Amino acid sequence: MKVQLPTSSLAAALSHVERIVPARSSNPGLNLVRIDLLGDALRFAGTNLDLDVETTVAADVRGDGALALPAQVFAQVVRALPGDVVDLAVEDGANELSISSGSYATRLQLVDPDAAQAPEFPDAFEGRLSARGLARALGSVRYAAAVAEYQAIFRGVKIEASDQGTRAVATDGFRLAYFDLDEASGLDGSWIVPAKSADEIVRLLDDGEVEIAVGDGRLSLRTDDVRVNVSLMDGSFPDYRRVIPSNFPITITLDADALRDVAQRVAVMADKTANNRVDLFVKDGVLQITAEGAYGRSQEAVEVQQEGSDAEMALAYNAKYLTDALQPLSGALRMRFSGPTTPSLLDDPEMPAYLAMVVPLRTG
Amino acid sequence: MKVQLPTSSLAAALSHVERIVPARSSNPGLNLVRIDLLGDALRFAGTNLDLDVETTVAADVRGDGALALPAQVFAQVVRALPGDVVDLAVEDGANELSISSGSYATRLQLVDPDAAQAPEFPDAFEGRLSARGLARALGSVRYAAAVAEYQAIFRGVKIEASDQGTRAVATDGFRLAYFDLDEASGLDGSWIVPAKSADEIVRLLDDGEVEIAVGDGRLSLRTDDVRVNVSLMDGSFPDYRRVIPSNFPITITLDADALRDVAQRVAVMADKTANNRVDLFVKDGVLQITAEGAYGRSQEAVEVQQEGSDAEMALAYNAKYLTDALQPLSGALRMRFSGPTTPSLLDDPEMPAYLAMVVPLRTG
Repeated sequence: MKVQLPTSSLAAALSHVERIVPARSSNPGLNLVRIDLLGDALRFAGTNLDLDVETTVAADVRGDGALALPAQVFAQVVRALPGDVVDLAVEDGANELSISSGSYATRLQLVDPDAAQAPEFPDAFEGRLSARGLARALGSVRYAAAVAEYQAIFRGVKIEASDQGTRAVATDGFRLAYFDLDEASGLDGSWIVPAKSADEIVRLLDDGEVEIAVGDGRLSLRTDDVRVNVSLMDGSFPDYRRVIPSNFPITITLDADALRDVAQRVAVMADKTANNRVDLFVKDGVLQITAEGAYGRSQEAVEVQQEGSDAEMALAYNAKYLTDALQPLSGALRMRFSGPTTPSLLDDPEMPAYLAMVVPLRTG
Repeated sequence: MKVQLPTSSLAAALSHVERIVPARSSNPGLNLVRIDLLGDALRFAGTNLDLDVETTVAADVRGDGALALPAQVFAQVVRALPGDVVDLAVEDGANELSISSGSYATRLQLVDPDAAQAPEFPDAFEGRLSARGLARALGSVRYAAAVAEYQAIFRGVKIEASDQGTRAVATDGFRLAYFDLDEASGLDGSWIVPAKSADEIVRLLDDGEVEIAVGDGRLSLRTDDVRVNVSLMDGSFPDYRRVIPSNFPITITLDADALRDVAQRVAVMADKTANNRVDLFVKDGVLQITAEGAYGRSQEAVEVQQEGSDAEMALAYNAKYLTDALQPLSGALRMRFSGPTTPSLLDDPEMPAYLAMVVPLRTG
């Protein structure tokens, strides 16, 4: 067989598979990329059991069949190719893939393609969303999912679909974020995907439409050149709506970027061994942020627009939770305080799709 | 006391001390920066026992005396300051340094300044060189010094000074590099500085002149705003001149950047567990570079200008040694091969100040 294609196309298609495939695995087929030769394209596939990824790229193909080789090694070689075009070839009966580009030539040993399972994808995709919309929804909330040491279900991102629209939501019990996409997918239900798989979905999606199918414990996505299966998480996601407060003695409005800068500066002094605590004090249209650690104390004040002007409130957050919550926001920021020990809400009144909730630290 | 100075000046002066001072140390004073208030300047000093660094920066100073505080914490706070100007203050009898810049204010706890030794520097500096020249000489050869696991003396960079000029030389026994600076320092002798200290000297030196003093087991340097003491290494540096070959059956000339690119690409396939070996074969004006590892083989050819045109030679190097040796070179590269198992020399005939020697791997 002989194949020719642009080096950059090969590198891009392969990188999506390389990223999810483990470099080493006790399961011998798992580190492989499987390459299927189609009439006018190459199809790359790999899996890490939680996630199957398949990418297709146009190529000048002579011959057919399938190849397999270690994904990381192939990707590393491709990244180093000097030419704009790459030629791939396998001589009849040979067990090596010849790769040449410009003056560079390499041969990589092939593996039996049956050692690399070809992932199976659904035939029909009932749902559809804009690819950018889904990526934005997942990408905006993913930070609020828990890291490894927490209860498993908190390490997922929940997708809620109805004819009203599509919501992505994540929480680790100490904070929460949701993003409402004003698009109905045509599906009805809710599914929890591992946060790490959500990261890959965000990276894979680009322009255009993404088609969606659900079944057999997995969520499948399809775009023009990518197909993905994501294993869904079992278990019941916390009833997060119950914990979002609705009564706020104090509401302030300020610039999101200004608060992010201030919080990052002040947090330099926060005690990393004591929840990275920063203290907030709102009074008379001024938000004062303070941190105190082993080496001293830092403080900064920001003018804010305050509703509930006769009230004041002192509360404390983990500085990282505060800056994470601000990440998807720029421009106007509304902070609504339900009380010194009950959750605070952060959002942009002009862009209500995104809402972040942060639970204050217990103080005193 | 009260001090005002540009934030960028403070950050730059402090960073030199921060970099050498250990973040944690069982020696309690060692993580500190000592700050002396001079009439119109601040002087920062720190040490890691191998190296003392002192930097001076102009400032508007009211008051006198000395302060000390943990270098890393102070530097981290200074990097986060929002304003162009920073105000430092200590209230009479207080034990805290107030730092304010723009809307940001912080207080850092001070330590008894006597806990941070003020390094002592020589009164007289007998030698002098251009700062850029010394930095270039040390920076060009430092890579050839050994890493931790080798014999101590190989982890140093030797400086040879005579009325003929100044040479920096480093070797780990498998490769060697020297750089001849065409400047006589006024000193006569040779000294070995730890390679890590050489790195710091390179970072500290800028424009202008550097004055040099040697004595009491240390080398001291002085510029307008920096003073440094470097502990010298004991022991006898290998007699490297003896091992530099002088008879070359084959000499080739090629473009240094082209060889660097080719070597890096081919080395992707080199076996990291077998000395990262790349094979070179010179014949008929062509240099062929090949690497072979667990996953396959890569090969690339470069046209070269060859003297000794009826000869051919096959030899192998550690790919990293080859690319390291090329680092200070650009433009014309001359490679002189003394034999398949004896050292090869790399230099630029137009810029003979720099010479690299690489010992081939044993093959077969």
